[in-house]
Amino acid sequence: MISFESDYNNGAHPEVLRRLVETNDRQSLTYGFDEWSDSAKRKIREVCQCPKASIYFLVGGTQTNATVIDGILQSYEGVICADTGHINVHESGAIEQSGHKVITLPSHQGKLDAADLRRFMEVFTHDESREHEAQPGMVYITMPTELGTIYKKRDIETIRQVCTEYELPLFVDGARLGYGLMADDCDFTLPWLCTQCDALYIGGTKVGALCGEAVVFPHGNAPRHFFTIIKRHGALLAKGRLTGIQFDALFSPSPDNPNTVLYFSIARHAIDMAKRMTLLLSEAHLPFFIDSPTNQQFVIMPNDRMHHLESYMQFTHWEPYDEEHTVCRFVTSWATTEADMDQLAELLSRY
Amino acid sequence: MISFESDYNNGAHPEVLRRLVETNDRQSLTYGFDEWSDSAKRKIREVCQCPKASIYFLVGGTQTNATVIDGILQSYEGVICADTGHINVHESGAIEQSGHKVITLPSHQGKLDAADLRRFMEVFTHDESREHEAQPGMVYITMPTELGTIYKKRDIETIRQVCTEYELPLFVDGARLGYGLMADDCDFTLPWLCTQCDALYIGGTKVGALCGEAVVFPHGNAPRHFFTIIKRHGALLAKGRLTGIQFDALFSPSPDNPNTVLYFSIARHAIDMAKRMTLLLSEAHLPFFIDSPTNQQFVIMPNDRMHHLESYMQFTHWEPYDEEHTVCRFVTSWATTEADMDQLAELLSRY
Amino acid sequence: MISFESDYNNGAHPEVLRRLVETNDRQSLTYGFDEWSDSAKRKIREVCQCPKASIYFLVGGTQTNATVIDGILQSYEGVICADTGHINVHESGAIEQSGHKVITLPSHQGKLDAADLRRFMEVFTHDESREHEAQPGMVYITMPTELGTIYKKRDIETIRQVCTEYELPLFVDGARLGYGLMADDCDFTLPWLCTQCDALYIGGTKVGALCGEAVVFPHGNAPRHFFTIIKRHGALLAKGRLTGIQFDALFSPSPDNPNTVLYFSIARHAIDMAKRMTLLLSEAHLPFFIDSPTNQQFVIMPNDRMHHLESYMQFTHWEPYDEEHTVCRFVTSWATTEADMDQLAELLSRY
Amino acid sequence: MISFESDYNNGAHPEVLRRLVETNDRQSLTYGFDEWSDSAKRKIREVCQCPKASIYFLVGGTQTNATVIDGILQSYEGVICADTGHINVHESGAIEQSGHKVITLPSHQGKLDAADLRRFMEVFTHDESREHEAQPGMVYITMPTELGTIYKKRDIETIRQVCTEYELPLFVDGARLGYGLMADDCDFTLPWLCTQCDALYIGGTKVGALCGEAVVFPHGNAPRHFFTIIKRHGALLAKGRLTGIQFDALFSPSPDNPNTVLYFSIARHAIDMAKRMTLLLSEAHLPFFIDSPTNQQFVIMPNDRMHHLESYMQFTHWEPYDEEHTVCRFVTSWATTEADMDQLAELLSRY
Repeated sequence: MISFESDYNNGAHPEVLRRLVETNDRQSLTYGFDEWSDSAKRKIREVCQCPKASIYFLVGGTQTNATVIDGILQSYEGVICADTGHINVHESGAIEQSGHKVITLPSHQGKLDAADLRRFMEVFTHDESREHEAQPGMVYITMPTELGTIYKKRDIETIRQVCTEYELPLFVDGARLGYGLMADDCDFTLPWLCTQCDALYIGGTKVGALCGEAVVFPHGNAPRHFFTIIKRHGALLAKGRLTGIQFDALFSPSPDNPNTVLYFSIARHAIDMAKRMTLLLSEAHLPFFIDSPTNQQFVIMPNDRMHHLESYMQFTHWEPYDEEHTVCRFVTSWATTEADMDQLAELLSRY
Repeated sequence: MISFESDYNNGAHPEVLRRLVETNDRQSLTYGFDEWSDSAKRKIREVCQCPKASIYFLVGGTQTNATVIDGILQSYEGVICADTGHINVHESGAIEQSGHKVITLPSHQGKLDAADLRRFMEVFTHDESREHEAQPGMVYITMPTELGTIYKKRDIETIRQVCTEYELPLFVDGARLGYGLMADDCDFTLPWLCTQCDALYIGGTKVGALCGEAVVFPHGNAPRHFFTIIKRHGALLAKGRLTGIQFDALFSPSPDNPNTVLYFSIARHAIDMAKRMTLLLSEAHLPFFIDSPTNQQFVIMPNDRMHHLESYMQFTHWEPYDEEHTVCRFVTSWATTEADMDQLAELLSRY
Repeated sequence: MISFESDYNNGAHPEVLRRLVETNDRQSLTYGFDEWSDSAKRKIREVCQCPKASIYFLVGGTQTNATVIDGILQSYEGVICADTGHINVHESGAIEQSGHKVITLPSHQGKLDAADLRRFMEVFTHDESREHEAQPGMVYITMPTELGTIYKKRDIETIRQVCTEYELPLFVDGARLGYGLMADDCDFTLPWLCTQCDALYIGGTKVGALCGEAVVFPHGNAPRHFFTIIKRHGALLAKGRLTGIQFDALFSPSPDNPNTVLYFSIARHAIDMAKRMTLLLSEAHLPFFIDSPTNQQFVIMPNDRMHHLESYMQFTHWEPYDEEHTVCRFVTSWATTEADMDQLAELLSRY
Repeated sequence: MISFESDYNNGAHPEVLRRLVETNDRQSLTYGFDEWSDSAKRKIREVCQCPKASIYFLVGGTQTNATVIDGILQSYEGVICADTGHINVHESGAIEQSGHKVITLPSHQGKLDAADLRRFMEVFTHDESREHEAQPGMVYITMPTELGTIYKKRDIETIRQVCTEYELPLFVDGARLGYGLMADDCDFTLPWLCTQCDALYIGGTKVGALCGEAVVFPHGNAPRHFFTIIKRHGALLAKGRLTGIQFDALFSPSPDNPNTVLYFSIARHAIDMAKRMTLLLSEAHLPFFIDSPTNQQFVIMPNDRMHHLESYMQFTHWEPYDEEHTVCRFVTSWATTEADMDQLAELLSRY
């Protein structure tokens, strides 16, 4: 059955797989000291325009968030995020597992608001009992957000200003970073984003890899002993080549478009598919729950119709809307084809 | 300078002190196996009408919350509370320190609402991705709350029903329990409360002791190896007699009123003082921020007047109200005297 | 340069890779609910002769140890192991990261001794202050050990007896399980091992996979909410197919020998190579540091010779032996060839 | 029944109690900001000859160790100690509770040996896989040790040298510090000890207080946000006066000897009693298990005699010696009297 359930229900992008196959017979150093990891790091540094960046390859998103956040924070510090933040909702308490409070501010369409952040820090700083509270130690944002929305340049700049003022490192969870940067509405680039944050990760799992997230400390500012921190979090791959080779492929020139790297070109394809999907959903008279320019689309669906459609395709029940409607999520990915869209059109028109 | 800042800025109640002095020369077993701890436990069991209760004496409130909650929860579980709950705000992340998420629901005048709790559990239970979340493992409420308000019998019964339905242990933080139970509005007793919850603690520090909180598992239902859990949290007193003797005194018949125990009679005195204080604040044209029947009173104070009054007495800035007003907290305790109230009256009338 | 440094410096076994390629274009459910994970679980249950086993695929060894141990233990419990145990030495404190003490007993050639274990538990159980100690909550052994040695049937039976007597779950770290079971000296089978332990993991990373460890709870006795525990440890693969497909391949009939599964046949090959390697090292007059029947061989090497040899091949400095000698480790794997052995013979005869 | 079981089975020293009584009626600031805590800190700074020392009062020993160690270490670091160290044996895993490994070296009569420490650090520093291990982050010693022995000046100096060389903070657990410093054999003073270590605590619970340990960072080098760290560990007393008043009394001039403070004079009394006890045990033909110059004495007792004696007095079974003998511990304290010794003499001569 056709599925619009997620952007990680396929295997690897063929080019990524090709590189895994092609290198398979070669021996290498372990734990990320292999030649492909080195090469991938060089390429990412170049694309980020951060020659001094320290880069680490981890396996999955929750693991990456827990490891980076625990690496940056002191034991008594917490991480500030929007209450819809992945670390607050869907990571099974992985941040708290290493002893840190997740300090939530209201979500604005999935985004953290700089004004909220400033107000929180102002009140906190003047609070007589602030030493009785978990100390805010960093800020976490997702780009794009869990609701498919994206930050604008101006949003991030103002968050950055507050961070700078209060000495809070800024960490960008880019599990779907490619889909965010390639959205029509996105008004900044990866190199610019690197100038604004203290750490970010470039998600591979959802953008063409079998697994793997590339953590970037743009200014060479990795926490001390970050290798040990990774190991302590069970996040160190013995065969580091597995992630190294994949990111080396993803950050090589795109076969289709030599002006960009594979990571961006396949993300852009997903956006093109998402644009057609948005049109189809709209034509099917499904109102949007939120206005998303990325590869996740949320519509308000009558429950009857939802149950009908589910016999023919897969998508996600996001949350109840009211007694008779449900918010449903439809996702495209690098692997979505025009044929998939044709089939979606057909099904939506019929049911 | 006279102080209405807190209910723990005095020494011990004279009767508590007398017992410490009187027993000082006697040797005893250590770690809570002394005769006074035994005696205190017997008396508390009797007052609670829980002959099978397991009782432990710990030193302070945050410590008690962290130890009990960690003792009850499995590693992957979180504790549900109102967002104003002490464990969420003023315990420096002590719950997260042992790996547990604090799962917050909206506060209703400091209280957790049974309907909110039910809705949360219903949604959680039906959420397809619930295995990706911290599992709700228990419910925490404060009686009285951080805002001085109290639960009604009906409130607790309905919370209990939800807890029973979803197999969530219910834990009552009674740091100021005496002041809550002795409030005019309170429509239940300690024995009744013991029938509703799985664990509670009877606060000593704020009700006449130098330190000490009595943890009660009413049905003999202490977590396995709770002694080791206490020690592991650094919460085991070598000289357990220190808390044993104090609770033995607090749960002995009140010298002033043989029909009740000292703990209740001194708490009732604080309530009487609070009632007079409420009248004085009201006569001083200070609007109440919240309607509290206990020993903590919150008024909205013009900042000018606040600064004036602060030259003559101490009270707490709770939070900013607006640009020109501050919510201020005034507290009575077992140690508050009529003379203190006269002085308050005088100062309020003058400034 | 030829390398005998580890059994994880190659890519995947060709058959494993073939299956990854062959399935790459198919969509699947995520988080381990894909068809290949299901199939792999069925096959492993069959090979283990444990029809009720609960099986989970994790990514790496340290992660697996931390997740399983945290899943089995209560917060206040520790895990008993030999002091050479991987969890005690080379996992960067990952067990302590989730709050558990590693309780060490003396290593006997890498092995835990049942008599030591019994004595420890006897003393502990009679120790008056045992409630002041981390409670022993499970036993961890490695098969084969970090030194390449293996347990005999009788060893494990007696450890099991002590475990049963003291209600300690027994967990077998099988990062190199295949190499242990296929050793000439091994006098038990995987199904038998499953009858003796409460949990074990079948290592994939070091036996032909790109990554992946299969956790087996032989009696369907996975800890409650183990899925959430995995997620909380950052150990849940979004594309669970990655490990599912690989274990499906490893537990399919071996192309070379239909009487066994690939996992065992490639492990047996490594043992055959190790036997030849042992002969070569011996002929090169290198005394053995320990008598290992598996794919890891430890020899005592004069430092001069070591530095010479290092110009021509890679192996591991295990630990200093004395001022002039070093213990060196040579490892074979499923990927080691007769040609590699010829080259080793040549190099050893020359330098 | 007379007891030589511990040095914490009495109440407070009368002078300490007198000060608690005398100050009881006065109001004070909370959380350690009271006048007596200030005064006690001044006095301790003076006695330590550390005008810049940061000082904090905590409640008990395990709590203090866990809080200080967690405060000093980074998340991925462990603490080095002798394998007999209290933190390794009798604290229920409180150090691991906050995520840190206890890294043990062999005990030499309860002491850590500088040569062992140096060797460990040399090997660790050159270990190729050291980034896969918990990083050694500080050194913990007890003075006196759990076996009543004491370090000599030279011992500590050489440990300090290794610490300095490898940038390891040195922390002295002084739960019984008074008894160590007042021992005949002790060849250094508290001010000298302060020059050698980065943190120490002066134990009150076992030296005349009802509870309380004074943490001293001699060079004003408390970890950042140590107040919050204390709170997060549940170690912050609301009525900080309780420990402040007691330490103010203990560090006031001794009523018996104006040349020293009460803390030292009462510790010296315990040593005098221990010297007579040593004589009595020796005359009773009980061989010593270890040669201790402090208030804890360990003898090897035939089990028969032990059971006899236990009908008349209390002492501790330390550990089995052989089938027929047990190591028993006898302890004096500030509260031990000549009459107690007379009774001991009488009982030992009779049974």
